[in-house]
Amino acid sequence: MALKLYGLPMSTNTTRVMICLHEKEVDFELVPVNVFSAEHKQPPFLSKNPFGLIPVLEDGELTLFESRAITAYVAEKFKETGPDLIRHKDAKEGAVVKVWTEVEAHYYEPAVSPIIYEHFVAPFQGKEPDKSVIDSNVEKLKKVLDVYEAKLSSTKYLAGEFYSLADLSHVSETHYLMQTPCASMITERPHVKAWWEDISSRPAFNKVEGGMTFGKNQE
Amino acid sequence: MALKLYGLPMSTNTTRVMICLHEKEVDFELVPVNVFSAEHKQPPFLSKNPFGLIPVLEDGELTLFESRAITAYVAEKFKETGPDLIRHKDAKEGAVVKVWTEVEAHYYEPAVSPIIYEHFVAPFQGKEPDKSVIDSNVEKLKKVLDVYEAKLSSTKYLAGEFYSLADLSHVSETHYLMQTPCASMITERPHVKAWWEDISSRPAFNKVEGGMTFGKNQE
Repeated sequence: MALKLYGLPMSTNTTRVMICLHEKEVDFELVPVNVFSAEHKQPPFLSKNPFGLIPVLEDGELTLFESRAITAYVAEKFKETGPDLIRHKDAKEGAVVKVWTEVEAHYYEPAVSPIIYEHFVAPFQGKEPDKSVIDSNVEKLKKVLDVYEAKLSSTKYLAGEFYSLADLSHVSETHYLMQTPCASMITERPHVKAWWEDISSRPAFNKVEGGMTFGKNQE
Repeated sequence: MALKLYGLPMSTNTTRVMICLHEKEVDFELVPVNVFSAEHKQPPFLSKNPFGLIPVLEDGELTLFESRAITAYVAEKFKETGPDLIRHKDAKEGAVVKVWTEVEAHYYEPAVSPIIYEHFVAPFQGKEPDKSVIDSNVEKLKKVLDVYEAKLSSTKYLAGEFYSLADLSHVSETHYLMQTPCASMITERPHVKAWWEDISSRPAFNKVEGGMTFGKNQE
C-alpha cells in the first residue's frame, strides 16, 4: 500500500517530505488539503494532526506529522534505497547530520520563513510586505550564512562530504528565497552558492520544483 | 574517557542533556561556561559551536551542539543502558517519539521560553517583566496544553505507554514554568498534571534539579 501524504506542493514543509520520498524512490499518493477553506483546522484532519498543520504522512495504521519527524522516519525506513540520508552505518556521522538538521530548524528556517512570508504571502493576501520584518531577518540570516560559508569551505555538504537530511531540509525554503532579492545572500558566498547549486540540481527536487508556486495547487 | 558537557545547570538546554545522560547512567564531566563574560561568544568556544550557544558535548574527537541532537545521539549510543528513550526496536514507535520531540521544540518550548524569560531573566537583568509577552504566550501555551491533555488522556506518555525522549525534552523548561503563576496551566489539566508529576519525579531529573536556579552557577 502506497504511503499517503496530506499536503500541498506550495508548502515548504510538504515539499521537504516529497523531496525525501523522491530521493528514496518511494511510491506515495499526495492528498491535497484545502488550506484556503481551512480544511486542516477542522475534523477529520485534526484527528490526523491535532495542531492542524500540513503535512501528515500515513503509512498504513501509522500517522505522523511534523515534516522533520516524517523525513527522519522515511530516511530510516528506506535506508537501503537511494542515498543514505542519515548515515545509519556510522553513529558519529549520523549525529552530525542531526546537528545540522537542528540548525536548519532553529536558525535557518526561522530567518528565511518571515522573508518568504513578506515577499510572497503578504502580497498574495493584498498586504504590503513589512520592510522592518525583512530587514531584521536579513540580519539574522547573514550571521547564519556566514557560519554556513565557513562550514562549507571545509566540507562539501553541511554534515560532511556526503549529501544528507541536513542539506535536504534546506531545499524547499531556499527555493523561494532564491526568488527574492535575498538570493544575493546565497550567491555572494561562493561555498554556499556551490552548495545550493548542487543540492537544487538533484532529480528528487526537480520532480517537485514545478509545483512550488504560491497561488497554484490551492484547488 | 568520560564525555565532556560544556554548559550550565541553570540552562534548560544544558539540563535537557544532563537528564538524558543520567537516565543512561553515563559518566560525564560538566565543564562550566562563563556566559556572564560571554565566553561562549568567543574563541575557543566558537570552534566547538560556531553559533555560540551552550551546551556542547565532546565524545572523544566528536563535537556536537544543539541539545536535541545531543540527546538523540546519547539515547542511540547508550540504547542498551537504562530506559529505551528512542524505541530503537520499533521503527513506528520511534517515529512517534520523534513527532512529539518535534512538538516540544516547535510548539511547547517557543511558548514556554518567553514566559520563563519574563519571569526569571528580566528581573535578574533589572527589567520589569513584559506582561503583553507573557499574555500572548499564555494563549499559545493553552492551545498546546489542550492538545497534550487530550493526548495524555489516551496514552500515559506523549508518544505512547512508555517514557521517551519526547517526555524528557519537556522537563527542564517545565521545571521553571512550575515556579511561575502559569503552573496552574499544568495543574488544572488532570492528565497533564499526572504526566508532569511522573516525569519530574524520576531520579535522573532529581539529580540536576538542585542546580536549576537562576543566579547560581555563574561563577
